[in-house]
Amino acid sequence: MRLVLPLLLSLMTIAATTPPPHVPPPAQLDVTYRDAAARLIGAALASDHAYLRLSQLCDGIGNRLSGSPSLDRAVAWAAQSMREDGLQNVRLQPVMVPRWVRGEEHAEIVSPALQRLSILGLGRSPGTPPGGITAEVVVVGSFGALDSLPDDAVRGRIVLYDVPFTNYGVTGRYRTRGPRRAALRGAVAALVRSVTPTSLRTPHTGATSDSLPLVPAAAVTLEDAAMIHRLIARGERVRVHLEMGAHTLPDSLSHNVLGEIRGRETPNEVVVIGGHLDSWDVGQGAQDDGGGVVISLEAMRLIRQLGLRPRRTLRCVAWVNEENGGRGGDAYADSLRSAVANHVAALESDGGVERPLGFEVAVRQVGTDSLDKAAGLGAGQITAGGGEADVSRLMRCGVPGISHRTTMEHYFDWHHTQADMLDKVDPVELRKNVAVMAVMAYVLADMPETLAPPARFVPGAPRPR
Amino acid sequence: MRLVLPLLLSLMTIAATTPPPHVPPPAQLDVTYRDAAARLIGAALASDHAYLRLSQLCDGIGNRLSGSPSLDRAVAWAAQSMREDGLQNVRLQPVMVPRWVRGEEHAEIVSPALQRLSILGLGRSPGTPPGGITAEVVVVGSFGALDSLPDDAVRGRIVLYDVPFTNYGVTGRYRTRGPRRAALRGAVAALVRSVTPTSLRTPHTGATSDSLPLVPAAAVTLEDAAMIHRLIARGERVRVHLEMGAHTLPDSLSHNVLGEIRGRETPNEVVVIGGHLDSWDVGQGAQDDGGGVVISLEAMRLIRQLGLRPRRTLRCVAWVNEENGGRGGDAYADSLRSAVANHVAALESDGGVERPLGFEVAVRQVGTDSLDKAAGLGAGQITAGGGEADVSRLMRCGVPGISHRTTMEHYFDWHHTQADMLDKVDPVELRKNVAVMAVMAYVLADMPETLAPPARFVPGAPRPR
Repeated sequence: MRLVLPLLLSLMTIAATTPPPHVPPPAQLDVTYRDAAARLIGAALASDHAYLRLSQLCDGIGNRLSGSPSLDRAVAWAAQSMREDGLQNVRLQPVMVPRWVRGEEHAEIVSPALQRLSILGLGRSPGTPPGGITAEVVVVGSFGALDSLPDDAVRGRIVLYDVPFTNYGVTGRYRTRGPRRAALRGAVAALVRSVTPTSLRTPHTGATSDSLPLVPAAAVTLEDAAMIHRLIARGERVRVHLEMGAHTLPDSLSHNVLGEIRGRETPNEVVVIGGHLDSWDVGQGAQDDGGGVVISLEAMRLIRQLGLRPRRTLRCVAWVNEENGGRGGDAYADSLRSAVANHVAALESDGGVERPLGFEVAVRQVGTDSLDKAAGLGAGQITAGGGEADVSRLMRCGVPGISHRTTMEHYFDWHHTQADMLDKVDPVELRKNVAVMAVMAYVLADMPETLAPPARFVPGAPRPR
Repeated sequence: MRLVLPLLLSLMTIAATTPPPHVPPPAQLDVTYRDAAARLIGAALASDHAYLRLSQLCDGIGNRLSGSPSLDRAVAWAAQSMREDGLQNVRLQPVMVPRWVRGEEHAEIVSPALQRLSILGLGRSPGTPPGGITAEVVVVGSFGALDSLPDDAVRGRIVLYDVPFTNYGVTGRYRTRGPRRAALRGAVAALVRSVTPTSLRTPHTGATSDSLPLVPAAAVTLEDAAMIHRLIARGERVRVHLEMGAHTLPDSLSHNVLGEIRGRETPNEVVVIGGHLDSWDVGQGAQDDGGGVVISLEAMRLIRQLGLRPRRTLRCVAWVNEENGGRGGDAYADSLRSAVANHVAALESDGGVERPLGFEVAVRQVGTDSLDKAAGLGAGQITAGGGEADVSRLMRCGVPGISHRTTMEHYFDWHHTQADMLDKVDPVELRKNVAVMAVMAYVLADMPETLAPPARFVPGAPRPR
């Protein structure tokens, strides 16, 4: 850690457009990496190549749910990009992925007055029977409120979770666990207020639990949740008709895409970086997570282009199926077998492409303390936490997990919606994020020491995908 | 005007939550109306009745396009509300309204890669032939750019107007006039970037010209306009498939709803106030213009409830068909015949329910000058202009037109979209707007003198509806 921290501090200062007030002078960049970092940052900030790559993925291919033809095209594009960039050992790693298909879907309040609802079915949800489901809605604001209802207030009804957004971890649980909990009480379907702070009648999809029992489940907009809540508060009995053609086909073959810069001294030691190539079946998956894939690809490209061959092997992975299964991350970890012990860090970018803030790291508590102190210098945020979905299996094997972090100022306005399009990515912020990832990846792969792995991996609250 | 201005100045000061800096002390309220205004303001700000009314319209009835069963319900609701409030001469005025039906509609980029578009067909647009239209898109940023294209760059193509939002009057012209101008150049369809400053993949409908030649026309989102523009800028030939089931049925019978407080001295002189009852067929028409109708109804209710019988007759009208025809406003004006000369002012609220700012007025220039000076006191905005769609015919007959104005900070984010729902109305701002309208309506109907009508009505740039 000795070397990494001063380096990062300087980098963060460069990358931040709006430094917080009362920032002490940044720590001096360790001389070992000052030149390499300067070259990487300069190259990243001067290039439009990342944006070009992201436009190929977003405009040229579009959204890419697991099992879709467009994900196949994205896999081919990622491999071709790695080859163009001169990465070594470019290869496709087979992954059997679930194949959930949305189908046609619609919902409306049928009484007291017809009002169409704007919905998106939740990933993994079953469809409704032909002709749909029509039932009275019961609204709850928490799991506790659901638990406290008598059986006859829930059985045969549609449960609406109308839970205001606090943060993704907390509010997202109603999407991941809510439908199953409603089903356990005898509900016939579940509606979940979209996990977002803002809306223009914008539904946000996402995965729900695949544990039995399953009932059809859809996200409704903030507006629709409020409307149903208002009607019920005024004593109306609100009946909703829900029709969803969602279904799950047999698993299909997809692939993680891997490419490397082989290490010059200890090539068997690996730092893995990457993002996830799949997205939901709406929008373009620009912020989630086309940006993360492109940032990782570009970091590799620049390191190689500048002739910076690190001590260890740097491996880039474009994972598949992060959104509705996590099979790509699992398959990658499983493929390593005992070689997982040679993974010295796993760095994923899946936190958007807004202004870069720093990294979350999961290392031994003592290490985290040091990082906290460094963050206190105000030159960047290095905080405890970390561990995106695709590297969670690696982390459970003891690999230090690191998450790339941006401000996420608007991330959850767009997340899992039709609005997650390329126009939401600021080309200048994209370049800054490439710079940050390139320097972090290079130093992790080159520094003499390695990060101290967590003594015992203590998973935090599971993060909804 | 002598009496109205000081009154308004005080009122505006009360209603504004964030007074501009450097505001001189407000002019003293003219003693004649100080007591009445205080009572109206107090009653308006203390009551939830307006919000209750608006929820009946929005949640209980929903959107209400001309010719729809829900507009019939809204007409009955408005008449019933006026009767409950004890208005006099409550009556329905027959209006034959056009009946445009959206039908099913969808569009997608079919090459270079499939990308679904989020659209809303424009009101009055014809549908596509069965099976839809597939054609290459040509993008223009202005009418001038369209005019400068050679014929073979337009003929047989779909014209996309990708014009950034400046203000509704300017940008809205591409929606109202763009499809026809594209058709005149031989285009087979028109797409118009939605008239809004912001978007979460949110299409905004609205009327387009009904002058021949007509081609199918739809609004696309900011995101989709940007995507098509990006692809074309990169040299791609973008082909779009557009399918719209829009059609126009024979005119159907609807009604303006009228109710009065008869004047105590000169009941043949009339001040008319109101808003429009119809909306587009998306969202709930809360800001546009359920709010304006309810504000007008409530102003009448409070004046009557407080026993404030003005010198002249105060008439409330809930107009129909403002959005796609203007037949309600025309029918009202036509019904007056020579009695239009007894209309001393026409005050419409169709500018949303955000924080009240004041009024726009269309009176003789000399009067406007005085009002400008008054506005300079900083106690409210009384500006030249004014004249909402429903009173435009009255204004052409010489009746001074006055428009209720709010900040419209977010109005065009929601306008003509699925997002124009009751949750967008702040109940406290609604009360303030009721107060402002009630005082303005009462003083206009009671003050000894009348507003000077414009010497010659000079219509400004036509405002898209």
